[in-house]
Amino acid sequence: MNQLENAREGRVTAQVTECAKEEGIDAQTLREKVAAGRTVIEASPNHKGLKPLAIGEGTRIKVNANIGTSQDVTDINVELEKLKISIEAGADTVMDLSTGGNLDEIRKIIIENSPIPIGTVPIYQAAREAIDNGKTVADISPEHLFEVIEKHGEDGVSFITVHCGVTRLSLERLEKQRRVLGIVSRGGAFLARWIRQNEKENPLYEHYDRLLEISKKYDMTLSLGDGLRPGCIADATDRGQVEELVILGELTKRAQDAGVQVIIEGPGHVPLDQIQANVKLQKQLTGGAPFYVLGPLVTDIAPGFDHITGAIGGALAAWAGADFLCYVTPSEHLGLPGADDVRRGVIASRIAAHAADVARRLKGAASRDLEMSEARANLDWDKQKELAISMQPFEKYRDSCPPKNAEVCTMCGEFCAIKIFRERRTD
Amino acid sequence: MNQLENAREGRVTAQVTECAKEEGIDAQTLREKVAAGRTVIEASPNHKGLKPLAIGEGTRIKVNANIGTSQDVTDINVELEKLKISIEAGADTVMDLSTGGNLDEIRKIIIENSPIPIGTVPIYQAAREAIDNGKTVADISPEHLFEVIEKHGEDGVSFITVHCGVTRLSLERLEKQRRVLGIVSRGGAFLARWIRQNEKENPLYEHYDRLLEISKKYDMTLSLGDGLRPGCIADATDRGQVEELVILGELTKRAQDAGVQVIIEGPGHVPLDQIQANVKLQKQLTGGAPFYVLGPLVTDIAPGFDHITGAIGGALAAWAGADFLCYVTPSEHLGLPGADDVRRGVIASRIAAHAADVARRLKGAASRDLEMSEARANLDWDKQKELAISMQPFEKYRDSCPPKNAEVCTMCGEFCAIKIFRERRTD
Repeated sequence: MNQLENAREGRVTAQVTECAKEEGIDAQTLREKVAAGRTVIEASPNHKGLKPLAIGEGTRIKVNANIGTSQDVTDINVELEKLKISIEAGADTVMDLSTGGNLDEIRKIIIENSPIPIGTVPIYQAAREAIDNGKTVADISPEHLFEVIEKHGEDGVSFITVHCGVTRLSLERLEKQRRVLGIVSRGGAFLARWIRQNEKENPLYEHYDRLLEISKKYDMTLSLGDGLRPGCIADATDRGQVEELVILGELTKRAQDAGVQVIIEGPGHVPLDQIQANVKLQKQLTGGAPFYVLGPLVTDIAPGFDHITGAIGGALAAWAGADFLCYVTPSEHLGLPGADDVRRGVIASRIAAHAADVARRLKGAASRDLEMSEARANLDWDKQKELAISMQPFEKYRDSCPPKNAEVCTMCGEFCAIKIFRERRTD
Repeated sequence: MNQLENAREGRVTAQVTECAKEEGIDAQTLREKVAAGRTVIEASPNHKGLKPLAIGEGTRIKVNANIGTSQDVTDINVELEKLKISIEAGADTVMDLSTGGNLDEIRKIIIENSPIPIGTVPIYQAAREAIDNGKTVADISPEHLFEVIEKHGEDGVSFITVHCGVTRLSLERLEKQRRVLGIVSRGGAFLARWIRQNEKENPLYEHYDRLLEISKKYDMTLSLGDGLRPGCIADATDRGQVEELVILGELTKRAQDAGVQVIIEGPGHVPLDQIQANVKLQKQLTGGAPFYVLGPLVTDIAPGFDHITGAIGGALAAWAGADFLCYVTPSEHLGLPGADDVRRGVIASRIAAHAADVARRLKGAASRDLEMSEARANLDWDKQKELAISMQPFEKYRDSCPPKNAEVCTMCGEFCAIKIFRERRTD
């Protein structure tokens, strides 16, 4: 029996117990959330050494880092370095989005080396293999696609992105409305092309029951992808996007009824004033399934700084109820992220997640802020370094260019307000 | 007659006309906002070559960059480099917060070299000079302080921060409540110490009419400082902070009645869920005076990344009605910012400001986003580079490591969704 079935039967699994402990919440409460589909437990039985993870209502906001090779960069060691850096920087999950090199081997090595849950997008591999055989994405056979999905389950993937909501209907709505930037999801673009060229329905939608069977077998969560997410703020919350979400709502129910856990993926590029509405809409249409947002990016004009535009949108989304933030790195819209981009992307998303946990008044969330503030009041720099989201900046700013007076910093020097206020108190 | 008086008399000054043109708004409407004290015109008559600037309701959100020497770093050339970088990165104003070296000379050189309005905090100079004469900040004479303020007006400073709301009453409230981090504003700490040690009222409050006279003479805006701003999220929106704001509300009215323009400075460290309330409170208590926020920072745990915590808070504050964002650099809480920190700080705040302008549906704000999105749809990389908030990332990511196929990028390569979608359209 898998996590969802156990939860429904009222059984608290070892994984639920472990997650509840990690979150500092009651295990029975967590079990109820899992049973209701409002929280998922990521715990692939085939991923050895995996620390299970809860994502959803009542738990800390989680952060995902995307890593993986591209056609241009295929070195597995670079990806293992990114995996290590992601975990050090605070990522809760990692998605292997590899599209270049030996994909089966890369995925296995990443899972082997990861203590945190791994997600994938199986259609990338199906597309890669079709192209390598001299074909196009439109030639991907449903049989092949499901074989790839099964392989990912066997290997220990905890969640897979499947763009089941890119259907003839949602595409028709998208086409009718016309968009500035069309489809920006790779999986979404593949399936749109597949549907158009084959004049058939999306196999992930058409054969959804088969997908559910495989997912259930490996206790693999379906991360229902937003293939029609807006790629620019002008396209946000349009009819194509919303039609897809309506379909995903129906598919959520079907999956849960079949004993399969579900996460919903969301936009994308969304202006500040539409973020809350997007979260509320997702929660309503999917019965409160965990919401996994990609950003959202609140402006289109900042390539090179989209970890910041994503942190702004992510903080607001998480505060409004989103549960899981997919990081955005500084290289987004420009190229494949390197190791340092990965680090900066994870930290930016962690800041957003933490700020939202504080704003939601999650139990204990603000305690680290309080400790940091006390360390600042005491001018205790070692303690500040220890409590910080990253120690690196202390090395960069303080250790490399120490202030004349070690008690303060080079910004205010003897004008340090905290020092003056302390002295005043002890006058 | 100064800007405020002219506006009240119904006269549209040359500066109002220039600002209105720059903002793409009607000059009469802008004049009305200025007359009502809801928008200010920064246009020191003594600053030669200054391009005037409107800050407040109905105009684009503005960004300030703090530069200036410290006791540890006193090179004027470094400051001129920071000034140049601030302007290039999109700062609308610069504050010279120098506390080391020849302060009169540094200020004059910065003003001489700046086409944008300059702000200062005169009490820093008064404190510096007291300490240089072997005294403490408690020995600053009111006479000396007002002389320094007058000098700044003569030199062409457009706005000065004066912590007039740090009074016996607001300090008493602060002390009674007890804070984790006391006072973190340098000016606030100086004045708290001055009040306590001299057992007298804050001279900037006591002799407020004299301050108004000087300000009026030089058409220098009073930026009423938040000396009691929270220095950590645990201290946010407490009675000391709010008492100070209540006092600033009264002082705003007195200044405007005397023909002096006013800006209100605000926090600081504020959790996400209290930002909107802080903005609404400020607007209500001050009759809609422009709000100049320092961040706000939405968590305390991210030294080295506070340009990001500040961008999250700044975006939300500006969307809620704040008018003017003081940047925060990655070196905040760690040391004096260097040139690269200044650049990164300005860009982060500009992103927040722009995202808020888009969310507020300011006329024309989203047009650059639309152009960028069209350039992306056309895979026109030169145009994207030209429209971006900074060209540097294009050089870093694309030029230094070009993709095999120049039409796409190294992230998706031939899997580029935009390319696939384009091909599909022209099938």
